[in-house]
Amino acid sequence: MEYKFRCDCPFTSAIDILGDKWMLVIVKQILLEGKETFKDFIESEEAIATNILSMKLKLLEDLGIISKSKLPNNKKTNIYRLTPKGLQLTPILVELALWSDNNLREVHSSLQKGDGIDLLRKDKEAFARALINAYQEKLHDNQG
Amino acid sequence: MEYKFRCDCPFTSAIDILGDKWMLVIVKQILLEGKETFKDFIESEEAIATNILSMKLKLLEDLGIISKSKLPNNKKTNIYRLTPKGLQLTPILVELALWSDNNLREVHSSLQKGDGIDLLRKDKEAFARALINAYQEKLHDNQG
Repeated sequence: MEYKFRCDCPFTSAIDILGDKWMLVIVKQILLEGKETFKDFIESEEAIATNILSMKLKLLEDLGIISKSKLPNNKKTNIYRLTPKGLQLTPILVELALWSDNNLREVHSSLQKGDGIDLLRKDKEAFARALINAYQEKLHDNQG
Repeated sequence: MEYKFRCDCPFTSAIDILGDKWMLVIVKQILLEGKETFKDFIESEEAIATNILSMKLKLLEDLGIISKSKLPNNKKTNIYRLTPKGLQLTPILVELALWSDNNLREVHSSLQKGDGIDLLRKDKEAFARALINAYQEKLHDNQG
């Protein structure tokens, strides 16, 4: 696949790939919400359209951020999971959530509050590690 | 200004605001490249269109990420600078650059290499602090 990069700047090049409404949202849905099928993504709160979802899943797969597979007992349904490369996006998601927590409350009155927020505020590195560990354990349990 | 948030998730809400091709690129241009006028942004490597630039500057200002002012000796030109709230975006930019450095080299052969990259790889927190300090010192020097 050909990627269009505006220039040689590493900041801008990351934004060329990840700077849209969906790429990181899909990664978040897999990492945090246990979503892994096309149907899961479609039914998510963010309500992505099917044609956009197909395009984004293809791009995420081409970039090695997610992998597509089948379950042993269900050969029909594609399962999308984060690769180790995909898990490297966790610190970006964590920084986005922290920024959101610090800056969006005044314009977004119903912004979620939860138990996780306390750890996020106290120790963002630990928060990121906890997300990655929980995901890896879930995968391990599923495969075991 | 009214903001459209897809749901109450803090991750998605940050992406609702920052997830596009320009918001973080403009912040990067101010923070790293010394750009501060409309003309500076238009002439940047990323080549933003004037109508999109106007819209994004307005949004960044409304969100308190940048502030608009005039220079004492030039009452015609607007100067856009990062606020303390805007500087809080630095860790997001740093994580994006790190991800880029780790993951985009195989699909983006001309991705910039530079002296800064070494510090970024070795100590991302120090890298972020260095960017913020350099920006604050520049502002301080300009204000005399």
